[in-house]
Amino acid sequence: MPVVRVYAKNEIVAEIEVQKCSNLLDVLQKKSVDIEASCGGKGVCGKCKVKVKKGQKPYLDNLTSEEKRHLRKDEISRGIRLACKVEVCEDLDVFLEKSSERTNILSHFVVNDFEYEENIIVKKVILQKPSLDDQKSFELRLKEIIGDGNLKVLPKTLQKLAKLKDQEFFAIVYSGEVVDVKKSYLAFGLAVDIGTTTVVCYLVDLVQKRIVDCYSFVNPQKKFGADVISRIDFAREKEEGLFILQNEIIKALNGAIQILTGKNSISKHDILRIVFVGNPTMLHLLLGVDPQTIAISPFVPVFTENIYAKPDDLGLEINPAGTIEILNSISAYIGADIVAGILSTKMHKSAKISLLLDLGTNGEMVLGSSSFMLACSTAAGPAFEGVNISCGMGAVEGAIDSVKIESGKVYFTTIGEKQPAGICGSGIVDVIAYMLKEGIIDETGRFCDENDAYKSYMKEVNGQQAFFITDSVYITQKDVREIQLAKAAISAGIKTIIKHAKITEDDIENVYLAGGFGNYINPWSAVEIGIIPKKLKNKIIPVGNSAVAGAVLVLLSGKMAHESQEIGRKVKYIELSNSQDFNQFFADSMSFENISQEGE
Amino acid sequence: MPVVRVYAKNEIVAEIEVQKCSNLLDVLQKKSVDIEASCGGKGVCGKCKVKVKKGQKPYLDNLTSEEKRHLRKDEISRGIRLACKVEVCEDLDVFLEKSSERTNILSHFVVNDFEYEENIIVKKVILQKPSLDDQKSFELRLKEIIGDGNLKVLPKTLQKLAKLKDQEFFAIVYSGEVVDVKKSYLAFGLAVDIGTTTVVCYLVDLVQKRIVDCYSFVNPQKKFGADVISRIDFAREKEEGLFILQNEIIKALNGAIQILTGKNSISKHDILRIVFVGNPTMLHLLLGVDPQTIAISPFVPVFTENIYAKPDDLGLEINPAGTIEILNSISAYIGADIVAGILSTKMHKSAKISLLLDLGTNGEMVLGSSSFMLACSTAAGPAFEGVNISCGMGAVEGAIDSVKIESGKVYFTTIGEKQPAGICGSGIVDVIAYMLKEGIIDETGRFCDENDAYKSYMKEVNGQQAFFITDSVYITQKDVREIQLAKAAISAGIKTIIKHAKITEDDIENVYLAGGFGNYINPWSAVEIGIIPKKLKNKIIPVGNSAVAGAVLVLLSGKMAHESQEIGRKVKYIELSNSQDFNQFFADSMSFENISQEGE
Repeated sequence: MPVVRVYAKNEIVAEIEVQKCSNLLDVLQKKSVDIEASCGGKGVCGKCKVKVKKGQKPYLDNLTSEEKRHLRKDEISRGIRLACKVEVCEDLDVFLEKSSERTNILSHFVVNDFEYEENIIVKKVILQKPSLDDQKSFELRLKEIIGDGNLKVLPKTLQKLAKLKDQEFFAIVYSGEVVDVKKSYLAFGLAVDIGTTTVVCYLVDLVQKRIVDCYSFVNPQKKFGADVISRIDFAREKEEGLFILQNEIIKALNGAIQILTGKNSISKHDILRIVFVGNPTMLHLLLGVDPQTIAISPFVPVFTENIYAKPDDLGLEINPAGTIEILNSISAYIGADIVAGILSTKMHKSAKISLLLDLGTNGEMVLGSSSFMLACSTAAGPAFEGVNISCGMGAVEGAIDSVKIESGKVYFTTIGEKQPAGICGSGIVDVIAYMLKEGIIDETGRFCDENDAYKSYMKEVNGQQAFFITDSVYITQKDVREIQLAKAAISAGIKTIIKHAKITEDDIENVYLAGGFGNYINPWSAVEIGIIPKKLKNKIIPVGNSAVAGAVLVLLSGKMAHESQEIGRKVKYIELSNSQDFNQFFADSMSFENISQEGE
Repeated sequence: MPVVRVYAKNEIVAEIEVQKCSNLLDVLQKKSVDIEASCGGKGVCGKCKVKVKKGQKPYLDNLTSEEKRHLRKDEISRGIRLACKVEVCEDLDVFLEKSSERTNILSHFVVNDFEYEENIIVKKVILQKPSLDDQKSFELRLKEIIGDGNLKVLPKTLQKLAKLKDQEFFAIVYSGEVVDVKKSYLAFGLAVDIGTTTVVCYLVDLVQKRIVDCYSFVNPQKKFGADVISRIDFAREKEEGLFILQNEIIKALNGAIQILTGKNSISKHDILRIVFVGNPTMLHLLLGVDPQTIAISPFVPVFTENIYAKPDDLGLEINPAGTIEILNSISAYIGADIVAGILSTKMHKSAKISLLLDLGTNGEMVLGSSSFMLACSTAAGPAFEGVNISCGMGAVEGAIDSVKIESGKVYFTTIGEKQPAGICGSGIVDVIAYMLKEGIIDETGRFCDENDAYKSYMKEVNGQQAFFITDSVYITQKDVREIQLAKAAISAGIKTIIKHAKITEDDIENVYLAGGFGNYINPWSAVEIGIIPKKLKNKIIPVGNSAVAGAVLVLLSGKMAHESQEIGRKVKYIELSNSQDFNQFFADSMSFENISQEGE
């Protein structure tokens, strides 16, 4: 059988014996090698680049047309291949490219005035000594001290009670159940937002009602597909795909728990609750529930309501008597992250009309007030996440995250102030906005040949016009078209939802910008290229990761879980895929025409 | 290290390398060899007989005084030893005596008119096909069909729902939760009575509301001690003792589940509930909760209220979304078996006063009606189970279970019509009653030397007078004393509880006899030797295994679980260990005097 030797930084990290003619990407993913394959191995995204050698020579056998399209000539001559297109028929050496280390993960948030409501009780207990005249069981004594005769007590808690009965101890009560008895009064919870790209975990002290720590990581499922559709495809097409995806996220969550408990010197048993939010697909994968109906019309999720589970049901390593709560979603593409966002902005309780925009991998939006709520989701595609953009990349170290083009010069910053390796969403929006302003592209999005001021930045790449920000990072005509499609989708979504509500842009008082991309985007640029209507420019309030903020609120207040269910029932979902309004607005929004005139 | 080779029926069954000077009983128990050790290895019960050889010779080294007391000379010369007294200091061959196969386990019961109340719903479901105008999640569709929007659905159920959503299927709903969705409508429950000696399991069809099958087995914890006190000692004294005992019963229950599901061609997943009853110690051991405070004054259990758990909490192999319910107890010695017994006799709802006697390993009793309820437990000891009786044995194959002595002749029957191997509880009561009637013993319990009619049945054993039923089964003076102690305890309990209730024997309308021994006992004999007051003789109603009957009722009706809690709150427990009345009655009841005159 052929052997694949895998090298990272020139050190061997794996030696894998494989079936003859195995797919190289499969082989690497099975060994949990961290390799990006946004399209799920279809040869579309061109991200799964690896250097392949047979002996000392670059391995060039059976080079596919997809590889010729995605790889530059110099890359090909060095032996760079797309792993998804390489069949392993003989011994090969595979060299991994450096993986990114720092990312711009959105882990802060804004919560205004908030009314806590006790939902966890930590009670110091000294049981009265029994006598022949008072033979009540220790469990009954405990219930009497807590003052609730209907409390449930689990076997594991009884086992501990038998040991602690003569000592002073603490009883932790949650939701009608004595969850733990122990010598310490510690009680923590986790608020977790599972994004398609990133996962954010907050460690919350449930006794002192404060956030203690935060830990974020890139969703390890990313290597099986960048967006929800390619993950769903992976779950459907690969044997055990669903299980592999669930296992990846659970393993990573347990790793995060390990890190957070270690850093804060607490025990895993001190974590008594986890509240999960995320988009419906991520929540389906978390629970191991097949999400395939989300991907195909009529786009129906298996579940939308609140789900309660025990840690063991999912293999999560916290107190086994703890509770796992998955917050409710609204539809196949409006998830618990949006419900939590509504909760944290309180837009559902305000008489004023607000617009919540969550611009992550998809574009989701909610329009409403205390009297009505509408939501829709636009298939903006992952262009704003750097996917399908020639030099696009995630918001990780080395990504150009802001650009300014002025007086014939180009300025930019990168994440971590590293050498520019590509461009992420907020940078892309900036580039397009300035290219438009400086006349490098016209209102239809076409490159203008006659712009002399930036002639030195223009070059052809694979027969296409391109604007070079650096020597190796550029924007092509095709990239501009991708952005036009994406911005048109969001813009059309906003217009459709406003029309559906029978209001005008003037009636909207707040525009809450949430989500990773939504937070780092330059509002001027977003308005300039027409993502957000000009009239709303001064109403923009970035709210950070409002999803995890909502999850923290649910952790801290029993009332909030109840409110989230009310929100779920109240929000009316507008399906855009069969909306004539949306199609019309989408067509109208493709060009950059009339944007500046609108409303000013 | 010395090696122990274990033989059964002359075939080698185990070869065990042991630490030098290990205790032989320990060694055998650790290998799960089925060996009786009623006293828990103290050298008191003399039950752990094995034949030990060193090479070809009987192993006689370090014979202890306990062994000399328990073993006949011919046994000693053959190499019979008490395993608990043998230290393994060199290689030994151990030959097990035949273990009993058939037992008189009480698995029938009597339930009068009973009002079912639906507590499990099995609903045939065809979900409406979604469309772009109706994108509700499949979970919501399911809840709408069942007609309860507040139902909880577990992740495992959602996983199945994702597969079944396009088909016709059945939803099983219990206690506000969709427990399962599946292609079959089968829903079963188990009602289990965990006795100190025997465990009885009923398989109940929850849909058709009928008992389908029954399986009983000897409690495998028996090899670590015959009564609750020696089990508690084992749990306290041995390292991992509690875990070992829990593990034994769980393993045996899973075996029973395997047998019952196999026999009835159903899947383990079709079992959705188990209701457990039993004495408090057995229930503590089932849950792995240290029961040691039950054994020492002031006799306080860790828990008495209903406990709910998930199958995985205990390692029970049924539907993992199912529910385990442990019925509530009353005190350290009045367990869920008694509460269930009250439920099934309905004595708590009757205006008439009833007495429930559960004569198993201990003697428990409840006196009352709809207006009051009292309970007490007498430490009668396990004499009626054949323990501490020279030729006593459990109600298993070969045990003499009834005896008649008349006109100078002795008649008897054995269980399974096998060669008599010993005598069990019901036989012992018969023997004593007839010995008394025929003047073989006098009213003080002393053997009468001058009784010529039965001279041929009398012989000395180890310096004691003995009455021989067969060549090898006999009753000694010490055995009579043991029975006197046991019967005095029960009799004094009955008198104390009656006095405490401020009623007379005439006020009692029904005497329900429950429990293994209580059911097989000959009422005439029980009255004759004074266990039950003569005035109650014609009011005796054997109710079989009323404990498991109550558990079946709880399985079938939600109302019953509620009633059992009410019973738990209503019953007042009388502690006899500090009752002057009891001590007086106990002293008065030791002799057989005045029994016949009483009340007639």
